[in-house]
Amino acid sequence: MILIGERLNGMFKRVGAAIVAQDEAVILEVAQLQIDKGANILDLNVGPTAEDAVAAMRWLAETARKVTDLPLAIDSPKPSVLRAGLEAAGGSALINSTTGEEEKLAELMPLASEYACPIIGLTIDENGVPRDAAGRTEVALKIVASAMEHGVLPENVWIDPVILPISCTQNHQPEVLKAIAECKLLSDPSPKTILGLSNVSQGTQYRPLVNRTYLVMAIASGLDGAIMDPLDGDLVDAMITAELLMNKTVYCDDFLKAYRT
Amino acid sequence: MILIGERLNGMFKRVGAAIVAQDEAVILEVAQLQIDKGANILDLNVGPTAEDAVAAMRWLAETARKVTDLPLAIDSPKPSVLRAGLEAAGGSALINSTTGEEEKLAELMPLASEYACPIIGLTIDENGVPRDAAGRTEVALKIVASAMEHGVLPENVWIDPVILPISCTQNHQPEVLKAIAECKLLSDPSPKTILGLSNVSQGTQYRPLVNRTYLVMAIASGLDGAIMDPLDGDLVDAMITAELLMNKTVYCDDFLKAYRT
Repeated sequence: MILIGERLNGMFKRVGAAIVAQDEAVILEVAQLQIDKGANILDLNVGPTAEDAVAAMRWLAETARKVTDLPLAIDSPKPSVLRAGLEAAGGSALINSTTGEEEKLAELMPLASEYACPIIGLTIDENGVPRDAAGRTEVALKIVASAMEHGVLPENVWIDPVILPISCTQNHQPEVLKAIAECKLLSDPSPKTILGLSNVSQGTQYRPLVNRTYLVMAIASGLDGAIMDPLDGDLVDAMITAELLMNKTVYCDDFLKAYRT
Repeated sequence: MILIGERLNGMFKRVGAAIVAQDEAVILEVAQLQIDKGANILDLNVGPTAEDAVAAMRWLAETARKVTDLPLAIDSPKPSVLRAGLEAAGGSALINSTTGEEEKLAELMPLASEYACPIIGLTIDENGVPRDAAGRTEVALKIVASAMEHGVLPENVWIDPVILPISCTQNHQPEVLKAIAECKLLSDPSPKTILGLSNVSQGTQYRPLVNRTYLVMAIASGLDGAIMDPLDGDLVDAMITAELLMNKTVYCDDFLKAYRT
């Protein structure tokens, strides 16, 4: 599993304030904590409070780089912010994210090609989020085809089939699981599949329980990675155990400890 | 989900001793506890210590009947013990279990037909437990075919694709998930699928974590029921949440409480 740490996001109060104040210590601490807990990639999102999002992303990526060589997921809807982040990340980064909208693909696939980096593709098109697995897979195919046209390798296309909150749209949850399985059949080598996990539990009373249960179900369906909270120990335990039960890692008596060392 | 409570089993020390001593109070207490925690069926297994297993099963089923009208899963490899339990259970019971071995099917399918009751079929044949999903599904088909020959309804055939301990056979775990999905395609209406869950965690350091993680994965694969421990609250929470995320139950804010009341 690719664990993309979600905590360097301006939506979190402390991180948002640190971005505005250019408080390096907070960013370095949150980055290091996530790395210590097993993050393979750090997501960077300056959030809505930064006045100059381009400058904020540049600062955030440069700051994160002081503590890690891990890939940085530059997370923004704005191409100018994405480019600033990719530049500042210097080599090891990915684009989070494009959608399947023509305009977005035309703008962002060339950027992914230029930086030869992975790009996350949300299965959203001009009509919004499809209501079933087939609709999601159709948008995913459009994203994969656009990637090919622009010389982006299929394994650098990471499809996110967009999980919505269980509190609003209960019929979507099993469809996303199906979409994860179907996306593996779109090309050979297949695109990777990832999820922005925490969205599934928005507005529920039992967020950690809903998050870890859905993560396990998605891993059983073939999920390759998730943007999630590495500081939630129960969530990471569930991830490790699910991977073990899918025969992706080798069993040993203390498999939790073994994975973490 | 059909939750078959596993605790009335002579393998548990206290229950084993109560069966030998014909101590009703212990049996009634364990039965009631499981029912209070949401068991839909109670498994009854006299274990290895009872001298006269037929008499012990008869006593156990009669005792359980004093506290509940729920179906009783009469759990024994011996036809004589199964028959005694079915008789004593009086109407609402099931046979746990046959295998796909010719001799077993010839003996137990007529019993299932006679009592018009569900029968659990383990996907084991003369060669033992198949090593992959296809082998399990093949044995399941044999069990379904035998049921049809003997006038047992397909929905009364409950296939258990036999989960082995992760500590011994790591490659079986994903195959069992595939087998669960494949078994749903064997007939229309399809046989039910169930698992003797706790076996997956035998010999591991983290039994509850392994049990609940595998249960969630199996539910994502279409599992209909499990023989499991209803007294493990985290396990039942995981089951409830997985069913919610599969859109099998309706969301409400306190979905854990709603399920339990």
